[in-house]
Amino acid sequence: MTVQVSVVEQIMSANDQLAAANRARLDEAEVFAINIMASPGAGKTSLITRTVEALRGEYRIGAVDGDIATTLDADRIAALGVPTVQINTGGTCHLDAAMFQNALPRLPVGELDLLIVENVGNLVCPASFKLGVHRSVLIASVPEGDDKPYKYPVMYRGVDALVLNKIDVLAAFDFDVDYFRRGVEALNPGLAFFPLSCKTGEGLESWLGWVLEAMKSGCSAGSIR
Amino acid sequence: MTVQVSVVEQIMSANDQLAAANRARLDEAEVFAINIMASPGAGKTSLITRTVEALRGEYRIGAVDGDIATTLDADRIAALGVPTVQINTGGTCHLDAAMFQNALPRLPVGELDLLIVENVGNLVCPASFKLGVHRSVLIASVPEGDDKPYKYPVMYRGVDALVLNKIDVLAAFDFDVDYFRRGVEALNPGLAFFPLSCKTGEGLESWLGWVLEAMKSGCSAGSIR
Repeated sequence: MTVQVSVVEQIMSANDQLAAANRARLDEAEVFAINIMASPGAGKTSLITRTVEALRGEYRIGAVDGDIATTLDADRIAALGVPTVQINTGGTCHLDAAMFQNALPRLPVGELDLLIVENVGNLVCPASFKLGVHRSVLIASVPEGDDKPYKYPVMYRGVDALVLNKIDVLAAFDFDVDYFRRGVEALNPGLAFFPLSCKTGEGLESWLGWVLEAMKSGCSAGSIR
Repeated sequence: MTVQVSVVEQIMSANDQLAAANRARLDEAEVFAINIMASPGAGKTSLITRTVEALRGEYRIGAVDGDIATTLDADRIAALGVPTVQINTGGTCHLDAAMFQNALPRLPVGELDLLIVENVGNLVCPASFKLGVHRSVLIASVPEGDDKPYKYPVMYRGVDALVLNKIDVLAAFDFDVDYFRRGVEALNPGLAFFPLSCKTGEGLESWLGWVLEAMKSGCSAGSIR
């Protein structure tokens, strides 16, 4: 067991160093980067395509798409005409800073304003691996249930904004928004919160406002995510 | 990297050995055990409570409930009057054979007919860790989307039955059942498939029939899962 823990600690520390290097590279190029995390099927690709559609007229956007298999999500994003790099993790349950570092040279980083990273669909593991971006965002979705902050606290604790997607089906599910939010507040007080529907478009304006405000704050501010 | 891979291989091999020991113990006690896996919020606890409610009159059932934090799910199952052991993984993204081994002495194994294990909500990592049970079951859910077999192939490949939960909301989502099933068939031909709704009860009879058939086949048959 001692060997195992020591190796894991070394991997984490190496990951943090690579994340810091990635962040420095993005800062130098003045590209603002966001890491999107969520359970499988919560709507990561949908939120990214909605965001790209809304902002691509004014900003130069790129994407990195992490998946265990297939290029289905990357294809959806690339179809919008933004440079997109697919990271196929080959079974690994999260992106890490080394994978992100390998993706960067395959993007025209110097020509971008915003880089959006879609992590692997997983509400546990991605929370433990910094990539070297500026903000991390979690998407919850109504059908997942209102108890997820209580049951997956690490993920909820470490993010800068929380999207609650699929509010168009709130009536079909027993989802208590107050109970959900109390769980979130206990872990991450004051967390920016955006209930919305990628399907209908309801609530997207507030989310887009947050993205633009975050971009305006500049690349050098904030923790390495 | 060589060191990392070698440690991981040793951990997996140790896990398989523990899983075999767990299975031998269950076989000796003639307890049939099922491991339920799924994304967060797909309906693991709901399927287990539905199954317990339907079968507890005729069979002696126990449960093991894995979660990263809280006893919310275990409380729901224990409320039905069946012996339930909570495994709090403390952050780990899956159950493993050692955790399951530690849970067994806390259950009246010799007095049970059926033991249901609820894994951590995760569509990736639990697929790689055998526990030592008789069958593994995956729950997909309609709101997750019809592309999940393509994107999470390892999980779909390694299970003995697939439940598609939340079919009561099929009309509210763009879920192509044929596309979904084609993806499943390519990975796991002939896989037992049970579309159902834990909310309305529709489709539960076929699932319960499968559980009873599996129990009848006896403890000594089948792979170690």
